[in-house]
Amino acid sequence: MYIERPTAILNPAIAKRNIARMAAKAKQSGVRFRPHFKTHQAAGVGAWFRDEGVEAITVSSVDMAAYFADHGWQDITIAFPVNWRQIDTINRLAGKIKLGLLVESPETVQFLQQKLTSPVQIWLKLDVGYKRTGIGWDDTELLDTVSTSLKLADKLTLQGLLTHNGHTYGIIGSRSIRTIYKETVERMRQVSQRLQEQGFERVEISIGDTPTCSMLDDFSAVDEIRPGNFVFNDMQQVSIGSCRPEDVAVAVACPVVAKHPKRNVITTYGGSVHLSRDYDDAYLYGAVALPTEHSWGTLVPQMRVEKISQEHGIVQTPPEMMAKIHVGDVLMVLPVHSCLTVDLLKRYITTEGETIEMMRV
Amino acid sequence: MYIERPTAILNPAIAKRNIARMAAKAKQSGVRFRPHFKTHQAAGVGAWFRDEGVEAITVSSVDMAAYFADHGWQDITIAFPVNWRQIDTINRLAGKIKLGLLVESPETVQFLQQKLTSPVQIWLKLDVGYKRTGIGWDDTELLDTVSTSLKLADKLTLQGLLTHNGHTYGIIGSRSIRTIYKETVERMRQVSQRLQEQGFERVEISIGDTPTCSMLDDFSAVDEIRPGNFVFNDMQQVSIGSCRPEDVAVAVACPVVAKHPKRNVITTYGGSVHLSRDYDDAYLYGAVALPTEHSWGTLVPQMRVEKISQEHGIVQTPPEMMAKIHVGDVLMVLPVHSCLTVDLLKRYITTEGETIEMMRV
Repeated sequence: MYIERPTAILNPAIAKRNIARMAAKAKQSGVRFRPHFKTHQAAGVGAWFRDEGVEAITVSSVDMAAYFADHGWQDITIAFPVNWRQIDTINRLAGKIKLGLLVESPETVQFLQQKLTSPVQIWLKLDVGYKRTGIGWDDTELLDTVSTSLKLADKLTLQGLLTHNGHTYGIIGSRSIRTIYKETVERMRQVSQRLQEQGFERVEISIGDTPTCSMLDDFSAVDEIRPGNFVFNDMQQVSIGSCRPEDVAVAVACPVVAKHPKRNVITTYGGSVHLSRDYDDAYLYGAVALPTEHSWGTLVPQMRVEKISQEHGIVQTPPEMMAKIHVGDVLMVLPVHSCLTVDLLKRYITTEGETIEMMRV
Repeated sequence: MYIERPTAILNPAIAKRNIARMAAKAKQSGVRFRPHFKTHQAAGVGAWFRDEGVEAITVSSVDMAAYFADHGWQDITIAFPVNWRQIDTINRLAGKIKLGLLVESPETVQFLQQKLTSPVQIWLKLDVGYKRTGIGWDDTELLDTVSTSLKLADKLTLQGLLTHNGHTYGIIGSRSIRTIYKETVERMRQVSQRLQEQGFERVEISIGDTPTCSMLDDFSAVDEIRPGNFVFNDMQQVSIGSCRPEDVAVAVACPVVAKHPKRNVITTYGGSVHLSRDYDDAYLYGAVALPTEHSWGTLVPQMRVEKISQEHGIVQTPPEMMAKIHVGDVLMVLPVHSCLTVDLLKRYITTEGETIEMMRV
């Protein structure tokens, strides 16, 4: 393929291997695999999950649920607090697919009871330590208020408890991940038991983060896993230790537009509107590989996207590489956070030359 | 208007006032006003500049140049190192409009001399301290190599020297901005004189950053100013001191989806795929105002977007505001960096109810 501008290049062989591995793990543990589709946001990539027997999915917005429902997905959880302002679309979806919604307040329970025109599955959003959103696992007062309101709401069926352990992204190594997972399960079980004592029959447990799902193997203590990022992985997952660089399935092809040998930096066309300003310590704004005929090679040691502005990338380059790379060449940037990077680029070119479009609102 | 999802709301009265003020300043100083259109990326907003007599513009990519040329702009500088991989589009543009290109290496001069099919105006990209890209102002060796190659290239006409003082964005107060401006002019004049001594007749000076152009008044020492961000401004410009909060022309309308009174935070639908992960110290990921009937009010003191993930915004909220804001309401987030934020949202709804689409690639 000929690269004119920053382009997301997707290697299907790597992505399919990542999907197969996670699907096998879920099967082994006997849990439902409900992958999060917010990472790829593309019906064309979603199809690869179907090949592994996946039928239930997670999304992060009502619009994304509508997009995947239009592409034949029949069992979708919107893992985001209910957006009251999209109740018309929620009702349209609830009328045609099995729809899961997240609830964390009595107001939203009452709102849904009043406005819903079809049944939905309700998940209580729990906060077991991430402190982003959700009912605190130890906030029994709020928990009881919500559960009381749920009992009065005959249109709503409680399916279970759902959490996202976003704090695992700040951690390195499987030992710490295991500790967080154990604590999470313990806290969720405690809440589950309280709800069962209050008369709720079925209270499933659903967990979601990629570091936990990639690094551990046995999930028999929960009912459902919802990882998303693992399909592509990225340099953040490499830093955490949940994948190897060769498990990263996307790279951004960036044209080289200038060289500064005195400062050992290369300027690329590929900035914050292509890579996103998300970064972690080790890989700054991205690691770098050289293109091969159809894909990319191993990471070039010590080569990093050091700074980005709107369209510019500034790449630290080892002196011995400065002579090998020319203006007009292409560098392959392995992103720090693939979810945000691909969201900016809106389409993939696969290493097999196919174009896969993402959803657009 | 009814807000369903995170939406860029644009107040045309504020944007037009910002444009008129900058156009008047340029006129007063007797310099060419070549505003950077990468901030708004919309033909509909570009039209407001025409109303102020603007005829020459700056863009940051070949695709953006093609978009604005298609919308009638006849004099466009692409303020980004030449992307060799888009030479076909560059030639198509050079054949129909007055096209300015940036050069910072002898390789690119030779490439253009070989490949160009129509004349273009050449600007030497100088680095006077930002260290992003460009020829170091004191790197006389490289400067002379490039100027020698330019003399041999009969298709290329040197128009002048161009710089972007990105380091003014890290500074607060007009005194420091003035010091940087003076130093910039001095350094560029030194290079200009060197080139004139080498036989180049006309060597203009073009500068570009919004902090300098907003905070100073007299630009008679240069030939051209290229600010972009000033059309919308943002909380970073407020922090720098180059505008007041009431000069910020865009806000992102974000639905409230959850409240956490115990932690004094509100969860909004509006995360890193809407606001961008760009932030500075004072305003974190954005300041917050409440919506008015058609626009937004003054900033709520102590209310800030503290954390963002893909779709979630976590808003620090003063206790007295917690009771006044409800799930289902809308908050207006004034972005930290408007260029990156609007790039994510791809369209504006004006406070007059009009929809303005941005370019899409």
